[in-house]
Amino acid sequence: MPSQRYKLTLSYRGTAYHGWQTQSLVPTYKGPTPLPGHGIPTIQEILSRALGRIIRHPITLVGSSRTDAGVHAKGQLAHFDTDQTQIPPENIRRALNHSLPPDILVRRIEPVDDSFNAVTSTTDKRYQYVLWNAPDRHPFAADLMWHRWQNLDLPAMQSAAAHLVGTHDFASFARPGHGRESTIRTLLDCSISQRGPLIVIAVHGTGFLWNMVRIIVGTLVEVGQHRIPPTDIPNILAARTRTAAGTTAPPHGLYLHWIRTRPTTLYPTSSPT
Amino acid sequence: MPSQRYKLTLSYRGTAYHGWQTQSLVPTYKGPTPLPGHGIPTIQEILSRALGRIIRHPITLVGSSRTDAGVHAKGQLAHFDTDQTQIPPENIRRALNHSLPPDILVRRIEPVDDSFNAVTSTTDKRYQYVLWNAPDRHPFAADLMWHRWQNLDLPAMQSAAAHLVGTHDFASFARPGHGRESTIRTLLDCSISQRGPLIVIAVHGTGFLWNMVRIIVGTLVEVGQHRIPPTDIPNILAARTRTAAGTTAPPHGLYLHWIRTRPTTLYPTSSPT
Repeated sequence: MPSQRYKLTLSYRGTAYHGWQTQSLVPTYKGPTPLPGHGIPTIQEILSRALGRIIRHPITLVGSSRTDAGVHAKGQLAHFDTDQTQIPPENIRRALNHSLPPDILVRRIEPVDDSFNAVTSTTDKRYQYVLWNAPDRHPFAADLMWHRWQNLDLPAMQSAAAHLVGTHDFASFARPGHGRESTIRTLLDCSISQRGPLIVIAVHGTGFLWNMVRIIVGTLVEVGQHRIPPTDIPNILAARTRTAAGTTAPPHGLYLHWIRTRPTTLYPTSSPT
Repeated sequence: MPSQRYKLTLSYRGTAYHGWQTQSLVPTYKGPTPLPGHGIPTIQEILSRALGRIIRHPITLVGSSRTDAGVHAKGQLAHFDTDQTQIPPENIRRALNHSLPPDILVRRIEPVDDSFNAVTSTTDKRYQYVLWNAPDRHPFAADLMWHRWQNLDLPAMQSAAAHLVGTHDFASFARPGHGRESTIRTLLDCSISQRGPLIVIAVHGTGFLWNMVRIIVGTLVEVGQHRIPPTDIPNILAARTRTAAGTTAPPHGLYLHWIRTRPTTLYPTSSPT
């Protein structure tokens, strides 16, 4: 039977997992003590095992975005190939969600043609970072938001964010060891909205460096606390060194919102929402 | 120094704990295999240990409601006595929240006179049960709502709920082994509201039997699925036996919303919200 490629759209709460995939630096880690999260399964491992059991042969699952440990996803993308095409996609999806842990959900499975690739077909991504800005933490969602009790100057954060939009060298906003040749990226949007104690920082761009969104958020929060003036952002970008920017926000407030991909010839891709 | 009584108002996510307190039947359990949750700490244990460390002597924490494993609380009440009255209550609260796990939050600590007792001063309680009524589960809140994918007939559930309001013998809605002499209780309100896929069943009464709210919810959901006609509720009450009612809803959708207590002479108690 001819092999068929499928596109997966999924959501997960990252709290219990060691990220989408063991980061490349982990296997080469030679430290004396095990890394945090060592031995904790990755979402990719759990998904490919469950998929393999359902379509009755091992599969390779290619994910679009390698979310770090603790990071959540509303619209992660992945693809895999199988020649077991007699199983309708919706049945695969139902069987998958039935066998997956409750904090992982496959939202959609679509057949796509072989030109689709979860990594190379990506055109742009949107992240959300959720802050809980109140004196007391939120006991029901402590692992889903970053609790900041200090007053945050939103207008200052918004004017700082405006300096980041556009095409810049984001070397100051990249975790060293990202292993990318170029650190030039394009931010299409960086907007901050508030509803009561909830502050959501949306970051939309065509490509991101390792920890880029978390370093942007950590820096914007320091702007909100008047530790960094908004007008310093251009200098921080110009410095092109990690130490110039603010702290890295913790992973548990970060959500991969959606990923847009190039349409494939055979099938329209889902419109991001 | 004279002993002073303090009233605690707290919220917690019950997912990781073996309930507020080990249920009385657990220590007498003689089964071959350990009980589920055996060895998992209770919220009472964690709180009293943290309190004891802060006020530097062991304390006895008396809780108002013994929430089961997995059940959440927005407004649980407790009281304790200490002669370390030189520490301001708000400082005790801050130190407590600092040392407690992120899924437990002490909202208020108030000095009260000795006539206040978290158990005997209670006049009425309100519970909320949250249903997620959608085809797919909610991966970010799977442990905070009961996922029911079937269509639920809300008007049928509401007319069934109306039959439960008032003073009745709720023996059919009590888990056997509750050890209460009388099974007659008074429901002041049982209302059902919906906002999109969220359905909230609010149950307000002067007293509850073991698992009473969860059995009420399980029965109402079966009414919503047309397995039980709303007009059967009076017969179910009259049967006065557990098997007459529907299934017991799982603990993870249940929230202890608030507890109202008799005002004490010295201090006004907090108004429930």
